[in-house]
Amino acid sequence: MSNAIFNHKSIRKYKPDTISDEILNKILKAASRASTTGNMQVYSIVVTTDPKIKEHLWESHFKQDMVKQAPVVLTFCADFNRFNKWCELNNATPGYDNFLSFYTASIDALLAAQNACIEAEDNGLGICYLGTTTYMAEKIAGILDLPKNVVPVTTVVMGYPDENPGLTDRLPLEAIVHYDKYQDYSDEKIKELYFEKDNSELTKQLLKENNKESLAQVFTDNRYTKKDNVFFSKSLLDFIEKQGFMNNEE
Amino acid sequence: MSNAIFNHKSIRKYKPDTISDEILNKILKAASRASTTGNMQVYSIVVTTDPKIKEHLWESHFKQDMVKQAPVVLTFCADFNRFNKWCELNNATPGYDNFLSFYTASIDALLAAQNACIEAEDNGLGICYLGTTTYMAEKIAGILDLPKNVVPVTTVVMGYPDENPGLTDRLPLEAIVHYDKYQDYSDEKIKELYFEKDNSELTKQLLKENNKESLAQVFTDNRYTKKDNVFFSKSLLDFIEKQGFMNNEE
Repeated sequence: MSNAIFNHKSIRKYKPDTISDEILNKILKAASRASTTGNMQVYSIVVTTDPKIKEHLWESHFKQDMVKQAPVVLTFCADFNRFNKWCELNNATPGYDNFLSFYTASIDALLAAQNACIEAEDNGLGICYLGTTTYMAEKIAGILDLPKNVVPVTTVVMGYPDENPGLTDRLPLEAIVHYDKYQDYSDEKIKELYFEKDNSELTKQLLKENNKESLAQVFTDNRYTKKDNVFFSKSLLDFIEKQGFMNNEE
Repeated sequence: MSNAIFNHKSIRKYKPDTISDEILNKILKAASRASTTGNMQVYSIVVTTDPKIKEHLWESHFKQDMVKQAPVVLTFCADFNRFNKWCELNNATPGYDNFLSFYTASIDALLAAQNACIEAEDNGLGICYLGTTTYMAEKIAGILDLPKNVVPVTTVVMGYPDENPGLTDRLPLEAIVHYDKYQDYSDEKIKELYFEKDNSELTKQLLKENNKESLAQVFTDNRYTKKDNVFFSKSLLDFIEKQGFMNNEE
């Protein structure tokens, strides 16, 4: 049993201690052992420790302090730039300027990211994923000099924890698992599966803070609104196209 | 150090032995501990063991025998169906019918998948990811009764290994890692980074089998062709739209 997996909690406060090269290398090596489509390894990892560059990243990541505080920021990118260059140097014509290739490269990047996180936690480090990467992909690409055919997919901050939160609540396993085929949810079933979440102390606190009548409204009205989602959908799709991944016609 | 991570090899031949409920539950639980955007858990896992349904999946996955052979087939899905239903039952209007939400849910599904794989390998099982999931998303969704707002992202077959392959070769770590910012590759650098891969015994064998002059051509001309990529890009985008994730205007 992997203790790192079962003890995982996102860490949002970090000690100033740096991560040794030895441990960082182990983490990156772990990332590189993840499965990758056809062993193409169509992803890259940008390891940022420079405080100045981290400050620019912090701005893009909605000024979440952990980006400045954590000693290491890893940006995992879908990357066909390296592979395409290799093809062109070998009399091969790459056909990877399309959405499927972007999505394939995203999968590579994300499996590598999760390996890195588990190895980091196995070495006493804390991590947190930043969802802001897809919102601000073009800005982040600018800061990190990402060339065409490279798109940032997710970011992980990493360092020694300066907090010790409890495990995050999860829905009961039966909420996310289906046997043999998908069993769609009745209203009753949804109410049952979300009952604990809807009635937790944390939820009561959130309803008060946000002045809402249900936890779901905290999500739809405050945290993940349609307006933001539509805005960021457009900017992400535009950027994917700009990076050369939307030539979906022969 | 996580041995499961560093010893990972994709397994394509399986013993008929089933996976015990206890171990399978541990694996699913491990999946559920992965980070998820805003703790929304917008993914589902379909666990298929029924031989008849596995046979239909096998057809969709280009008849790769391991789909029939492995006792368990896990289909990881981007899933806003459950979350949207919960919103609607709680006077909240979900705004998750757009590309960003699909991509967010894909990230959730993939981090959970990698956790499941590591936990499986930690318990002596072998795994293999199937890239065919995105090619055949609509077909697979049909077999598994996936409703609107659910898209299959990746598939993992799982069971006790009946082969013991060596570790897969990887590019040197410096090929995929960049410090502080992305350092683009010169032609010389590409040649250097791919030298070992281009000149391995495996490559020599592949060039002979495929009658090609470079390994890159094996990828561009045979394995991952522009024609296929364009075709599957269109069908994947069409299906994402059909499932309700392409309303990117307010």
